[in-house]
Amino acid sequence: MLELMQRSTFTDLIFLLHHDRVPSAGERRLLDAILIGVADHGSGAPSCAAARLAASGNRQSLSAAVAAGVLTIGDEHGGAGSGCMDLILEGLARVHQSHRAVADVAGELVAETRQRGSRVPGFGHRVHSEIDPRVAVLFDLAAREGLAGEGITFARALEQAISTQIKTIPLNIDGALAAILVDMGFPSAVGRLLFIIGRVAGISAEVLEEHTREKPMRIKVPVVYDGAPAKTGQE
Amino acid sequence: MLELMQRSTFTDLIFLLHHDRVPSAGERRLLDAILIGVADHGSGAPSCAAARLAASGNRQSLSAAVAAGVLTIGDEHGGAGSGCMDLILEGLARVHQSHRAVADVAGELVAETRQRGSRVPGFGHRVHSEIDPRVAVLFDLAAREGLAGEGITFARALEQAISTQIKTIPLNIDGALAAILVDMGFPSAVGRLLFIIGRVAGISAEVLEEHTREKPMRIKVPVVYDGAPAKTGQE
Amino acid sequence: MLELMQRSTFTDLIFLLHHDRVPSAGERRLLDAILIGVADHGSGAPSCAAARLAASGNRQSLSAAVAAGVLTIGDEHGGAGSGCMDLILEGLARVHQSHRAVADVAGELVAETRQRGSRVPGFGHRVHSEIDPRVAVLFDLAAREGLAGEGITFARALEQAISTQIKTIPLNIDGALAAILVDMGFPSAVGRLLFIIGRVAGISAEVLEEHTREKPMRIKVPVVYDGAPAKTGQE
Amino acid sequence: MLELMQRSTFTDLIFLLHHDRVPSAGERRLLDAILIGVADHGSGAPSCAAARLAASGNRQSLSAAVAAGVLTIGDEHGGAGSGCMDLILEGLARVHQSHRAVADVAGELVAETRQRGSRVPGFGHRVHSEIDPRVAVLFDLAAREGLAGEGITFARALEQAISTQIKTIPLNIDGALAAILVDMGFPSAVGRLLFIIGRVAGISAEVLEEHTREKPMRIKVPVVYDGAPAKTGQE
Repeated sequence: MLELMQRSTFTDLIFLLHHDRVPSAGERRLLDAILIGVADHGSGAPSCAAARLAASGNRQSLSAAVAAGVLTIGDEHGGAGSGCMDLILEGLARVHQSHRAVADVAGELVAETRQRGSRVPGFGHRVHSEIDPRVAVLFDLAAREGLAGEGITFARALEQAISTQIKTIPLNIDGALAAILVDMGFPSAVGRLLFIIGRVAGISAEVLEEHTREKPMRIKVPVVYDGAPAKTGQE
Repeated sequence: MLELMQRSTFTDLIFLLHHDRVPSAGERRLLDAILIGVADHGSGAPSCAAARLAASGNRQSLSAAVAAGVLTIGDEHGGAGSGCMDLILEGLARVHQSHRAVADVAGELVAETRQRGSRVPGFGHRVHSEIDPRVAVLFDLAAREGLAGEGITFARALEQAISTQIKTIPLNIDGALAAILVDMGFPSAVGRLLFIIGRVAGISAEVLEEHTREKPMRIKVPVVYDGAPAKTGQE
Repeated sequence: MLELMQRSTFTDLIFLLHHDRVPSAGERRLLDAILIGVADHGSGAPSCAAARLAASGNRQSLSAAVAAGVLTIGDEHGGAGSGCMDLILEGLARVHQSHRAVADVAGELVAETRQRGSRVPGFGHRVHSEIDPRVAVLFDLAAREGLAGEGITFARALEQAISTQIKTIPLNIDGALAAILVDMGFPSAVGRLLFIIGRVAGISAEVLEEHTREKPMRIKVPVVYDGAPAKTGQE
Repeated sequence: MLELMQRSTFTDLIFLLHHDRVPSAGERRLLDAILIGVADHGSGAPSCAAARLAASGNRQSLSAAVAAGVLTIGDEHGGAGSGCMDLILEGLARVHQSHRAVADVAGELVAETRQRGSRVPGFGHRVHSEIDPRVAVLFDLAAREGLAGEGITFARALEQAISTQIKTIPLNIDGALAAILVDMGFPSAVGRLLFIIGRVAGISAEVLEEHTREKPMRIKVPVVYDGAPAKTGQE
């Protein structure tokens, strides 16, 4: 570890702890870009909002507030990346096993996903109707570093199949980092964990701001209770 | 434990686990009322809102959502009860050590609290301007069960001292349960833990409703970010 | 809520918050027995050990320690009850849809579970080789209160099918409470939540003891790291 | 953010999110070394053990296991760094206010800490009896990068005062990073948060290993229950 402390970056260590080897310079550059890309998405994201609620009610423990933020991360929040990795890895396995064309397998997976009534994870965006500029940044980096592989190829084939079968729905940041993480040799569980590691940096900054700049218990949450009439009164 | 399962209530067990003896019938009645009183305060309370945010983003684990709710409980949210217990226990210690009058010691503690620029925990309420009806329920039960002791006496003396030194600010639910828990022989850390135990029942019901009736990621949290301009973009 | 505080027990409220009606006297008795039965299983259970580790390292927040304990509860720890509820509910659905005999459907489900290479949740026990005495207590209470229904019938049919297809593996406490919760009309998600609510009482008592009687950082955990040689040194 | 993704490291972003400016090359190097130094301390550390317990019982949520590990971080585990920062910052404030000599103020703070019956945070080590080699690595880096300032000077003065008043107890890794973080202009709350951010990388790797290589519920925790006889049976 002394040598790591002297010469390596935190990103090198994150790669090493989840991969059993140190990254190449290009892999380090891409992992840095990915961790930065997922770190912070504004105070309204569930991870940040829950952390601020805990920081607001429970000033006794910074770690409690960070943990509350982490706990909102799951299949629905932060899960599109690892979900898209599962899809790409399944697709590449079929390609290799049966020597079929990438486009055919991608079309098959999109059709199967639609039959289950699900959305294809890693595609589409609430804000960016055309294309998320972060996708271009990640793919340009991957190309420049010579790391664009069959993960990115398969992701693009999924995009094409969606466009053919449904309509044009571009790859988003989750789909882009999924393709790159596949090309760097990570399983999907690591995709989820890297999202958590990156997002903790953003959550931490939100907790710090809540502690140092805001009054306790300031946040009003307009959760609409649309169940049966409240049975036990209101505070 | 077999005997407990056959004859006791869950409230008996909670008392036993935190007191090293089973409760009397009156103590059981009061602890039931206290646990019910803190269980649920609407979806807007930080504990419930954070649990719903986690249930909304992370559908994979019911325990993660319950834990996120628990983590918002601390000095500022759910802490007034144990804070008021500390005050009452400190006051009673002074009364017994120095044989002074309850009213004098209560006045002294209120003055000290004001000098520190703090509010007296357990008094005042956002909604009920006059008196919280739950206070009357708890104190009536304590009187009827013959359990009103020096804890309640001291809490009333604090209320009187506040009225004299500041203005009329009635005891709230936290102050009432603090007085009763002191009279049942609990330390303040148990006050905090009993709040958590009671509130977990309410948090659990909110998590259940979010899972069974609501779509994922539906909650919009209007946390106003009033720091420096966002440095890393918006989701 | 004032009326609930005056007349009801905490167990009544727990039932009400998860069922939309108050329990009968018999249902209250059974739910009390179930919550007591799951509350505490010794300091070595993952829920209690993790809570003590957090109480030992992070003395600043009681709620952080309780939450750490809650987070260990999932499919593998505390999940056998809700897993068995899923099995019973699936079985009863097949019985009602196809008018088949309970014994046939139970045999079918046991065979399907074996084909998947899984154990049948709710059966077998590490300590009690013959029969867990808590099972008898719960089923006696259910019979005495007139609440034994098709849930218990189906659980017994599963036990018979296991005995025929594999060997004698008796119902355990998780299987017994699963059968009873089905007979009280709860879905399996509530089974998981009731386990959390009951266990929080036991976790809370462990946290209290760690805070009041033990030194910080006293717990040595012999987790054997059998991966690659440690890359970043030892503390 | 696009520019950050293209050119910056994750460590740059962590610095920026907690400091409101980008780091110099030397500051980046030091923060990398600090984050690596706190990331991983073996599976027996409370943060790693609690995370593995949650990963072992609750396989449904990676974020739940990471959060359980984070929750063990507090005053006693991971708190020595921020505790030492508080001491150094208090000392430097006294030096600047009263124009007294660093050695005098350091001696005064050590004496005050001893009077309270506390240990001086950031000094002494369980394993390294003489000097932790990581301390030398950090201080060498700080000197080489021209970043050694009054924080390091004050930490060395504390070490000297301890040696004079008690016995030789060398600075440990927590004390070294505390001195350097003070010299980089961070408040003590950020010290705690940076510990959490660094340690999350190590926790994540432990959770990954538990999920991919170990059976559920394998961990036996020898928590000795030395309280009253168990009241509710053993699992």
